[in-house]
Amino acid sequence: MNETIRVTIWNEYRHEMTKPNVRELYPNGMHHTIAEGLTGNFAIHTATLDEPEHGLTDEVLANTDVLIWWGHVAHKEVTDEIVDRVASRVLQGMGFIALHSSHYAKVFKKLMGTTCSLLYRDVGEKERLWVIAPGHPIAEGIGPFFELEREEMYGEFFDIPSPDEVVFTSWFEGGNVFRSGCCFHRGQGKIFYFRPGHELYPTYHDANVLRVISNAVGWAAPVKREALRFGKAVPALEVIQPKI
Amino acid sequence: MNETIRVTIWNEYRHEMTKPNVRELYPNGMHHTIAEGLTGNFAIHTATLDEPEHGLTDEVLANTDVLIWWGHVAHKEVTDEIVDRVASRVLQGMGFIALHSSHYAKVFKKLMGTTCSLLYRDVGEKERLWVIAPGHPIAEGIGPFFELEREEMYGEFFDIPSPDEVVFTSWFEGGNVFRSGCCFHRGQGKIFYFRPGHELYPTYHDANVLRVISNAVGWAAPVKREALRFGKAVPALEVIQPKI
Amino acid sequence: MNETIRVTIWNEYRHEMTKPNVRELYPNGMHHTIAEGLTGNFAIHTATLDEPEHGLTDEVLANTDVLIWWGHVAHKEVTDEIVDRVASRVLQGMGFIALHSSHYAKVFKKLMGTTCSLLYRDVGEKERLWVIAPGHPIAEGIGPFFELEREEMYGEFFDIPSPDEVVFTSWFEGGNVFRSGCCFHRGQGKIFYFRPGHELYPTYHDANVLRVISNAVGWAAPVKREALRFGKAVPALEVIQPKI
Amino acid sequence: MNETIRVTIWNEYRHEMTKPNVRELYPNGMHHTIAEGLTGNFAIHTATLDEPEHGLTDEVLANTDVLIWWGHVAHKEVTDEIVDRVASRVLQGMGFIALHSSHYAKVFKKLMGTTCSLLYRDVGEKERLWVIAPGHPIAEGIGPFFELEREEMYGEFFDIPSPDEVVFTSWFEGGNVFRSGCCFHRGQGKIFYFRPGHELYPTYHDANVLRVISNAVGWAAPVKREALRFGKAVPALEVIQPKI
Repeated sequence: MNETIRVTIWNEYRHEMTKPNVRELYPNGMHHTIAEGLTGNFAIHTATLDEPEHGLTDEVLANTDVLIWWGHVAHKEVTDEIVDRVASRVLQGMGFIALHSSHYAKVFKKLMGTTCSLLYRDVGEKERLWVIAPGHPIAEGIGPFFELEREEMYGEFFDIPSPDEVVFTSWFEGGNVFRSGCCFHRGQGKIFYFRPGHELYPTYHDANVLRVISNAVGWAAPVKREALRFGKAVPALEVIQPKI
Repeated sequence: MNETIRVTIWNEYRHEMTKPNVRELYPNGMHHTIAEGLTGNFAIHTATLDEPEHGLTDEVLANTDVLIWWGHVAHKEVTDEIVDRVASRVLQGMGFIALHSSHYAKVFKKLMGTTCSLLYRDVGEKERLWVIAPGHPIAEGIGPFFELEREEMYGEFFDIPSPDEVVFTSWFEGGNVFRSGCCFHRGQGKIFYFRPGHELYPTYHDANVLRVISNAVGWAAPVKREALRFGKAVPALEVIQPKI
Repeated sequence: MNETIRVTIWNEYRHEMTKPNVRELYPNGMHHTIAEGLTGNFAIHTATLDEPEHGLTDEVLANTDVLIWWGHVAHKEVTDEIVDRVASRVLQGMGFIALHSSHYAKVFKKLMGTTCSLLYRDVGEKERLWVIAPGHPIAEGIGPFFELEREEMYGEFFDIPSPDEVVFTSWFEGGNVFRSGCCFHRGQGKIFYFRPGHELYPTYHDANVLRVISNAVGWAAPVKREALRFGKAVPALEVIQPKI
Repeated sequence: MNETIRVTIWNEYRHEMTKPNVRELYPNGMHHTIAEGLTGNFAIHTATLDEPEHGLTDEVLANTDVLIWWGHVAHKEVTDEIVDRVASRVLQGMGFIALHSSHYAKVFKKLMGTTCSLLYRDVGEKERLWVIAPGHPIAEGIGPFFELEREEMYGEFFDIPSPDEVVFTSWFEGGNVFRSGCCFHRGQGKIFYFRPGHELYPTYHDANVLRVISNAVGWAAPVKREALRFGKAVPALEVIQPKI
């Protein structure tokens, strides 16, 4: 529990290249801002879409305990091969943290099995994230709520499976609510969806946001167990002869 | 599934007696307004705090499929004997719908096991209830959201066990969110907590509110099964001799 | 709630054609045995793999409230186009009941997002299905448990998302347990996975099994609501001006 | 996350005093056997029923992160004052692990709000505990299942609220199943119910059982957050004036 967690932060890394106002907020890309902002016993690696195999080789994934993902305009450019590879690793135990517009990332949608659609509006309104699971490790160190002065709005209905735990619910100035911090168990892996992070706002410089992501890495780190076994040839299959 | 559901609507019935502005909204008490507003194949009975045994005799409860409850200033006057009687019937299968300030009703707190505390403010602000379980029978006939122009605010953290299903989440003008429609399975019974209904507003005249309560009655009605059996003397206790 | 539910029973219908012992149990195919055994206000239609579009045309699906599915050896022959069509209808509200080996049906796996793998063994052992959600409508009319004298074993770990409700848990003579009756909410639709039904045993002639499937049809029937709306152009998007 | 967790192990400590065969298994009481068997960065304290205030003074509880509880024949002797004190501390964040016959402990029943009844039989049959939440920290280091050669049987229906997570489901030789490892979030606290531990068997000497309890201590330890705040006087209550 106290060992170093190997984190890979994956970023599409397009907005920062093409939009000056985004580059100003994240000069080296959001992935580096997040990498610098996380606190914990983490060994952090980064990867981006335009690297070979999107930077997510078998070797990289084999050495990743928790994968953080940010994508938006280029979801379609992520190859199905890499999507399958990542999803498979999640089911085997790798933690997966999907940020903001990654609700539409291929790998997230594949793992959810639903459309992952939602309502949205970007007028830079205020967001308040309320803690509704106060005993959850992802809420550690967070007050009853925290605010982001300007964010894009995401609103319900959010077409995801009922989360196993909802840690945060957002209030938006314009009249909407959203399940903003959602935990899912899939196979041997754990998934956390965290809503904030529109590229036009300095969200990943926010101390509470960074704390939540850091907490989520700790929560999502794999437990140490042997691989799951399925099918016919397993030790448990002998028929038991009761002695009673 | 198509049989008449026997509904008892229980009301503390104190505000209507002592506050003119409440009496104006609910001249015969909220229980009668709700009784007249429900739609479905229901046989409706009412009961109030000041009747003998609070109107909840063994006979009344034995003939109740779903009990609706509204209380506020007089929770403490409900005797423990009646609380135990009602809670016991719920675990045996009777549906229970707790309205608004009944989050603090003794019977609700007993069934939840938590404080059921929350944040509150009454400035008559707007409430928007968003449907976040669109396939749930309690949401039938309701749009993506509905509004109440003026209501008391209840805000998170709401100290209840994680509901088995959250059907509605409220947005409040003043910056708060709330799990406003919460389903719980307890024993053989089903419980629905529904937030709206401050006595100073015409909430129980609202068509959406009445539709939700009507739907909830259908959902909470008992399934037909034999009583639960516990302990030592049950047919399943013979030890099985495998033939394999 | 009292209206006729339009049910389509889909069967791969291969084992009955090729294996005499299966044909003996289900001379006209399992779909017809199930169709004859269901009780309720249902209008029942059947469809099979080898019909054009597998019998699941847009028109058939548009007129189906609940789709029951049995597949085993020919999952791969179901075209991706039909899989997408069915999954999409489920998210829009159509109920879906996956029977036994349909845990590996393409459409079920797609909706779950996991491998849906499990342990299995077929030695014709005894299965006992215990009710662990006694207030659930799918358990109506069922005792504390019911037994199937001979069945194939499916054992945990069953690689599905945590069900929203587990109605039955199976005990198997040979030492295994299984979540045998699993409810899932997805989009506006409801999904029920029900474990029993190996083709070599007379499972679909069993009164309890038929009762459970009948109950599940009632539970999974769509609620009446408008279609889900996503994206930017929705009425709720006006920003609210508080009057306080 | 890496800090010492302060654990108090509470034992009724009666069977060990009165029954020689129990004393033989647990010469200093089960609490000491468990204390010696736990592994982790724990500071362990013990307490028993017959101490003043049952060993659970305000000071002891204020210095307890996780309380482990074993009771059986003397549930009624635990005073309501101490029950309320413990339950209140759990809602404030203290972890609580209820072992075996503590399903009927007053504090557990109070926190659950249900009867917590079940089926039981003691013929010393085999129990197999299957992991059905393989990514859960409480399952760390445990195989697909583990066995106890002789245990008392507890069977469904177990009258508890639907657990937030079920980590283990037991198979019993005699034909029963049971949700044997159940997680509950209540207030700011976390509760784990773990089934094994009849006093007549050497269950608390079993390496898997001890591993599970050790894991559960880690899971149930409080997160660091300020106390929950309720009522009217909270910072979040200012009404927000949107700037849009």
